[in-house]
Amino acid sequence: MNIVKPQTIAGVMELLPEDQLAFDYIKNIIEETFLSYQFLPIDTPAIEKNDILFAKGGGETEKQIFGIDSSKKDMSLRFDLTVPLARYVSEHFSDLNFPFKRYQIAKVYRGERNQKGRYKEFYQCDIDIIGNNSLSIHNDALLPKVIYEIFQKLDFNGIKFHINNRKLLNGFFESLEISDKEEVLRTIDKKAKIGEENTKELLVEICGEEKADKLMELINNKRENKELLTYLESLNLNDNYKIGLNELKEVYDYMIKFGIDDDSIMIDLSITRGLDYYTSTVYETFLDGYESIGSVCSGGRYENLAGNFSKQNLPGVGLSIGLTRLFYQFQQLGLVEKYKTKFTDCLVIPMDEKLNFYAIDIANKLKEQGLKVDIYLEDGKFKKKINYADKIGVKKVLIIGQEEYENKMVSVKNMEDGKQVSVKVEEIREYL
Amino acid sequence: MNIVKPQTIAGVMELLPEDQLAFDYIKNIIEETFLSYQFLPIDTPAIEKNDILFAKGGGETEKQIFGIDSSKKDMSLRFDLTVPLARYVSEHFSDLNFPFKRYQIAKVYRGERNQKGRYKEFYQCDIDIIGNNSLSIHNDALLPKVIYEIFQKLDFNGIKFHINNRKLLNGFFESLEISDKEEVLRTIDKKAKIGEENTKELLVEICGEEKADKLMELINNKRENKELLTYLESLNLNDNYKIGLNELKEVYDYMIKFGIDDDSIMIDLSITRGLDYYTSTVYETFLDGYESIGSVCSGGRYENLAGNFSKQNLPGVGLSIGLTRLFYQFQQLGLVEKYKTKFTDCLVIPMDEKLNFYAIDIANKLKEQGLKVDIYLEDGKFKKKINYADKIGVKKVLIIGQEEYENKMVSVKNMEDGKQVSVKVEEIREYL
Repeated sequence: MNIVKPQTIAGVMELLPEDQLAFDYIKNIIEETFLSYQFLPIDTPAIEKNDILFAKGGGETEKQIFGIDSSKKDMSLRFDLTVPLARYVSEHFSDLNFPFKRYQIAKVYRGERNQKGRYKEFYQCDIDIIGNNSLSIHNDALLPKVIYEIFQKLDFNGIKFHINNRKLLNGFFESLEISDKEEVLRTIDKKAKIGEENTKELLVEICGEEKADKLMELINNKRENKELLTYLESLNLNDNYKIGLNELKEVYDYMIKFGIDDDSIMIDLSITRGLDYYTSTVYETFLDGYESIGSVCSGGRYENLAGNFSKQNLPGVGLSIGLTRLFYQFQQLGLVEKYKTKFTDCLVIPMDEKLNFYAIDIANKLKEQGLKVDIYLEDGKFKKKINYADKIGVKKVLIIGQEEYENKMVSVKNMEDGKQVSVKVEEIREYL
Repeated sequence: MNIVKPQTIAGVMELLPEDQLAFDYIKNIIEETFLSYQFLPIDTPAIEKNDILFAKGGGETEKQIFGIDSSKKDMSLRFDLTVPLARYVSEHFSDLNFPFKRYQIAKVYRGERNQKGRYKEFYQCDIDIIGNNSLSIHNDALLPKVIYEIFQKLDFNGIKFHINNRKLLNGFFESLEISDKEEVLRTIDKKAKIGEENTKELLVEICGEEKADKLMELINNKRENKELLTYLESLNLNDNYKIGLNELKEVYDYMIKFGIDDDSIMIDLSITRGLDYYTSTVYETFLDGYESIGSVCSGGRYENLAGNFSKQNLPGVGLSIGLTRLFYQFQQLGLVEKYKTKFTDCLVIPMDEKLNFYAIDIANKLKEQGLKVDIYLEDGKFKKKINYADKIGVKKVLIIGQEEYENKMVSVKNMEDGKQVSVKVEEIREYL
């Protein structure tokens, strides 16, 4: 037979079972936390109509959309979970209750260039809250609380939410009579990448030395949160600025109230989320000690989710964890080990086929007692059987020979020190 | 803004949140049961290289493959989870332990014609056990046990595994000196669809009246399992037949030993699984009282999983639940209701924004006690708030007014009878 070389397409993450278990452990923590905050699950198709995916038009992602080679060429693979959400909420509008809190953990597809840590297929874990016409600002404080809990469960105590407000920034730009606000926003967004000096230089080019100085002073203003809010209040600028500041203050107050440590919040006026469609609150999230991996969870508030699909005004706020990339980074940092859970408590090995039924009885009994028990029924020499136990990394092996069977016993072998003891069937549990 | 009509592509299942929760409930039962039998999870990319997907060549599925519109036209969406498994095991052969028990619950894609209950995107829940060179027949009995447990958890007590063995059938055909065994197999496979008489007629055409009679007698032989096995043994035909019969007997004995009720097993010589690549054990599974929906879980044993990708000889056995189609059938039968779990235990409603903090304190406290508690912080009149509670179907609402706040109380409203009682904060739990 002609042998085809077995390999995945480039730029996808495919894990071996042990790592897959760790990946699923993290994914399940995220999912169960989303659920515990009453976010509803949705599961949209990976393939959407092109007029849905291209409704917005333009942008980088459009070039990365994977088309489906159908005769009608009218569908493609989703590149994020936001467009499908917009389509979903618009399509099912009258069947949903608002505010609609949904989560979706699913794979998205982008024709990225091949590059380490960049994937053509990757999991996004999205939570969004969508309002019908209006949505209270308190929701912007709830989302970080959910994420906070996830990273606590994942054993990160130090996490920092960098929060900002686009209205405040725009108000500030207006007060400086800056004409190209978008350009300034985009430049500030680059700061973490290009550094302090280059940012300043670019800002000078856009709006001159004096305004650039004021902008740099604002975005570099790193004080204790309450102090910073007091300072910002003292500036007393235009309406847009004041509305933004009030929102920022309220989000901060409610984050504390929801139970996020003040140490885990940083009002950071340099966070802008680039040209994304956010209009008010914006967030980025960093893990203490691992700031170099960048933001692990980002998002913000948008004025209208689904202007392309519906006449309804649907304001919302969302946060997203890029799980595949995050897992890759955990792998690089050697952090995956701690998410590897014990998959099998013990392996039952009958020495001879005649003993299979007795071995199955014992395995059934232990399973009923809630143990994760596996049984090895393949033919072969003892060495092969014990090798298997060794390879799968199980700590305890129950060996069943003729003698054990006759005496209603089993031999419990500790794979770590090689020691073996004979145990009565009723007492096995204590030895595991 | 130009409004694009929000709709999914045709032929995909997209559920509203309430049904999605029921779907996920079923999916989770399947997943946790797979795990409890030490099946390892794998998660392969939805997109595979074309030379992988088309390696086998020919067949109906090939026409249904969704190509990806990339410049190189060399990748497509997977149409099942078996080809990806074959590629996975071949690619990662040296890193896996055999027998390799894996499960995968994922969406697959087929360009099906639009038709009710047929989907272009659907979940498959696959379990397979793959051996390296050999694989004991006992594994064929373990798989039905896993499925048995799943449907018990899903509240079906009556389930019936129809089992058969292809070697036995082929041996029987050989004993009748039938030349076109495949044609006979295919015809028998149609029986459930085309009926007794038509099957007989087709068989007569293929091999004449006398042989057709003998074939019909065999496949219609419905006796109590042990009696049937004794009868089949008495025929004492060729080697192929005897090997198949021994395998069938062993699978049956071990199914009983693993804890499947004899009532739930039916040795059914009319089950062939058509032209699928099975070579020994074949199964179909029916739910008592719902036989009309057809087999809910099918599969069998194959001689070599990955002949196209590897020189290793990899025998295996697998079973698969087509979850999306099954859920559709549950919907048609009105069976979904019982999988709708309680999503929210109670909803906290502050009457006024000033009471938000007090309401959050109460919600936090109840959440710590393990309750599924939601809080409604949107502005609006009381009627709007209580309407929301009504719509999401929550049974208990905690209303927080100024009076409640001052007396450290809450009002617990029972949404079913409309009754309302004042309760001390410490005693809320008892009223939920």
